Amino acid sequence: MSDALQQLKTRLDDIANINSAVGVLGWDQQVFMPEGGSETRAGQLSTLSRIAHEMFIDPEVGKLLATAATESNGADYDSNDASLIRVTRRDYDQSTRIPAALVAELNHHSTMAHPVWVKARADNNFKLFAPYLQKTVELSRRMAEHLGYTDRLYDALIDQFEPGMKTVEIEAMYDDLKQSTVPMIQKIKDRQDRANDDVLRRFYEEAKQSDFAVRVSRELGYDFNRGRQDRAVHPFCSGFSRDDVRITTRYDQHFLQAALFGTMHESGHAMYEQGVGADLPKRLATGTSLGVHESQSRLWENIVGRSRAFWTHYYPLIQQVFPDSLGDVDLDTFYRAINKSAPSFIRVEADEVTYNMHTLVRFELENEMLDGKLDVMDAPDAWNAKMQAYLGITPPTDTLGILQDVHWSGGLMGYFSTYTIGNILSAQLYAKAIADVPSIPADIGQGKFSSLLGWLNTNVHAHGRKYMPQELVKRATGEPLNSRAYVQYLNTKYGEIYGF
Amino acid sequence: MSDALQQLKTRLDDIANINSAVGVLGWDQQVFMPEGGSETRAGQLSTLSRIAHEMFIDPEVGKLLATAATESNGADYDSNDASLIRVTRRDYDQSTRIPAALVAELNHHSTMAHPVWVKARADNNFKLFAPYLQKTVELSRRMAEHLGYTDRLYDALIDQFEPGMKTVEIEAMYDDLKQSTVPMIQKIKDRQDRANDDVLRRFYEEAKQSDFAVRVSRELGYDFNRGRQDRAVHPFCSGFSRDDVRITTRYDQHFLQAALFGTMHESGHAMYEQGVGADLPKRLATGTSLGVHESQSRLWENIVGRSRAFWTHYYPLIQQVFPDSLGDVDLDTFYRAINKSAPSFIRVEADEVTYNMHTLVRFELENEMLDGKLDVMDAPDAWNAKMQAYLGITPPTDTLGILQDVHWSGGLMGYFSTYTIGNILSAQLYAKAIADVPSIPADIGQGKFSSLLGWLNTNVHAHGRKYMPQELVKRATGEPLNSRAYVQYLNTKYGEIYGF
Repeated sequence: MSDALQQLKTRLDDIANINSAVGVLGWDQQVFMPEGGSETRAGQLSTLSRIAHEMFIDPEVGKLLATAATESNGADYDSNDASLIRVTRRDYDQSTRIPAALVAELNHHSTMAHPVWVKARADNNFKLFAPYLQKTVELSRRMAEHLGYTDRLYDALIDQFEPGMKTVEIEAMYDDLKQSTVPMIQKIKDRQDRANDDVLRRFYEEAKQSDFAVRVSRELGYDFNRGRQDRAVHPFCSGFSRDDVRITTRYDQHFLQAALFGTMHESGHAMYEQGVGADLPKRLATGTSLGVHESQSRLWENIVGRSRAFWTHYYPLIQQVFPDSLGDVDLDTFYRAINKSAPSFIRVEADEVTYNMHTLVRFELENEMLDGKLDVMDAPDAWNAKMQAYLGITPPTDTLGILQDVHWSGGLMGYFSTYTIGNILSAQLYAKAIADVPSIPADIGQGKFSSLLGWLNTNVHAHGRKYMPQELVKRATGEPLNSRAYVQYLNTKYGEIYGF
Repeated sequence: MSDALQQLKTRLDDIANINSAVGVLGWDQQVFMPEGGSETRAGQLSTLSRIAHEMFIDPEVGKLLATAATESNGADYDSNDASLIRVTRRDYDQSTRIPAALVAELNHHSTMAHPVWVKARADNNFKLFAPYLQKTVELSRRMAEHLGYTDRLYDALIDQFEPGMKTVEIEAMYDDLKQSTVPMIQKIKDRQDRANDDVLRRFYEEAKQSDFAVRVSRELGYDFNRGRQDRAVHPFCSGFSRDDVRITTRYDQHFLQAALFGTMHESGHAMYEQGVGADLPKRLATGTSLGVHESQSRLWENIVGRSRAFWTHYYPLIQQVFPDSLGDVDLDTFYRAINKSAPSFIRVEADEVTYNMHTLVRFELENEMLDGKLDVMDAPDAWNAKMQAYLGITPPTDTLGILQDVHWSGGLMGYFSTYTIGNILSAQLYAKAIADVPSIPADIGQGKFSSLLGWLNTNVHAHGRKYMPQELVKRATGEPLNSRAYVQYLNTKYGEIYGF
């Protein structure tokens, strides 16, 4: 190994150690920190984040990168060293393009905007939030100018979350989805008597929910020797290395779905982080993008966790845990309950069919505002019109409409489409997995998940950040990212349930 | 404020933020970290500790300190600024005197020595551990040479834990204690029928122990909005600022003392940390020494928690919690049970009377080994002879003797005497508190602790690290540290219980 590469690695490992320490502090903040600890924690996070950032954008890192790249010229593209140099170069260029003053302004803006958004949402008062949304648009534009783009402003923004992804590709993805989903939503809307989730709203004792969800999570393949589960208001997964990846869950004793499917969702994220190659440099030892991460959580939550095969195995077991609430419910009723679909106002509560239309509304609005085609003051009407067009419903208030999500108050734009990238990729990966390993569906029906997890480990997880999302998708499935498998999955599954 | 002082403060705050982040990582490691996370955590801790150390010993800090000292010459000694400069100068000189290579050698030694000590203790094989103990002695000598001392090697070592304390002062303290304690131990030994702790060894359900201990802790004055309690194998208190101070407890369902008095002990540490002045610079916003810290834990655990007044209030309450185990036990029997005294082999299980003779054995042995008066191979015999002389018992094995404590395997010498400094100081402070606020004993009898906590807040806690231990003791009690109050306390309390 070249001397420059060795020096670079030492620095990058230190930076990764600081960043993963920041991760632990963030986890603690949401799970166990006493209320009084906020200010102390803010100070710790600010110091550590600043030091890690300064260590990374140090010109010396740029020099070491250049020297290491020259010295390792001709190295195998797939090698850890070549990948580290390639990925770090990309990170370095991106980090050094954003002026510290803009980062500070963004942080300040999000600190100011968040409480205003909370109040605006509570009071259904969009006007209150409008100037802050305007500022988010402006700051996002400036961010995009610094980051650089050739075609669309949004390219620069999505690139931070989904490296290499282009706006036109996302538009193509949504076009396909819109074409197939909008009529599907209409058909399902007309057949609401075919499924309801009443049985999930009976009483389910928290401790028993927790035991059952942890059992399922363990059997899916989440390694609790390298992880743990706790309660939190907003469920999340946080990994500090492949050997310490933690998830959180919230419980609702009168709605079985929240904890059970939430745990499978977070376990999907966690198994990705636990599955990255043990030999990867720390900087590469994590998921490659938000969209690919979401593909893992959705795959385990929905494609596995909401499948009939899965419940063929688990339904008798959950009936034993909750005999009072499920003893009189047959498998088919339960299966329809957990897969009930209907247009609704709130994204985070949306089902597999309607979910992507929610992110589409946001994707289109963000682009229109960024491109100056839509005035912020007109955004609520635009939101409602799109909801009517895609989901056939109009939010009665902005609280149930444009004010529902926290993201824009945090100065974030370009994020929402990664959820849908995750959804369609989950189906694309699963289709390839069962093509490669045909026993997977039958295995799931017997509560065995190692064949599926093994395929994901080898084809997705092990690579960590070595490849950009599209590279990874192409390598894993032989095709670029596309919605064909997802649309087919929805058609088959919901066609059967809703009879169309 | 001078520019140099402002720059210094900014640097010191960053360093304090990193160190308190290290504290959170250490807490998590002992309380919630999954088993697999050890290596990741070691990497995080190593990077953060190294960065904080490098930032502190930076020559620029020395220059800023010198400039700030000149510029603030004549400032009030008691002011935060003058105290910060004074204390930081002392820390800086100490830190810069120890070569990085010696620190690395010590860390390496303790990593190697710890598993050997575990095995030696398990196998009752002192010979196995002897070379490592020899190395601890040698490294401690070298450490002392670097730190500097005028009289005794031990001066340099104790100074790290108890700034300014001298070996001759500790010897004087132990001489007084020995003179009064050794005969007292003999008298108590002859009157063992006067107290036994059988009733504490009945069944006490863990959840109820926890609820009661937390209730007591809260009522003593530990603020749970700025703290929390969890389970851990080795109970400890860890503070990240006055606003986030956490304690841990272990439970034994067949021994009531462990959790109940352990919680009061840790709450004492925690109330010290929670009580430091809100206006103090972060570097000064913590306890001033191990001994003063231990005085707070021992004061609440023993002087308050094992007093008859305290149980006059709480005994009916704990009887209600454990009617099956305590319903037939009267207050006097319970009071004698929690204050049972008897010579025993293990320091951490020793009572108030015998405890200091355990640390004396170690203090004398450390000095004799450091001064070259005792060969390490002869240390077990010396240990046993001292145990016989001070406690009237001889350990049957080295496992129950010289191999019992972890400290020497960690390369630590000079630590044990701080426990006894804490013990005698607890009584010295309490005596002054009740002289100043005569209602304190009666308040305790009514479960009211704010008068005592208020006195401690004002006279001890609020100052943080502004004053060295002896300065603080002199300010708070008007006298230098001495064992008179402690001896008197033991005589009165145990004279009454054991009838001498």
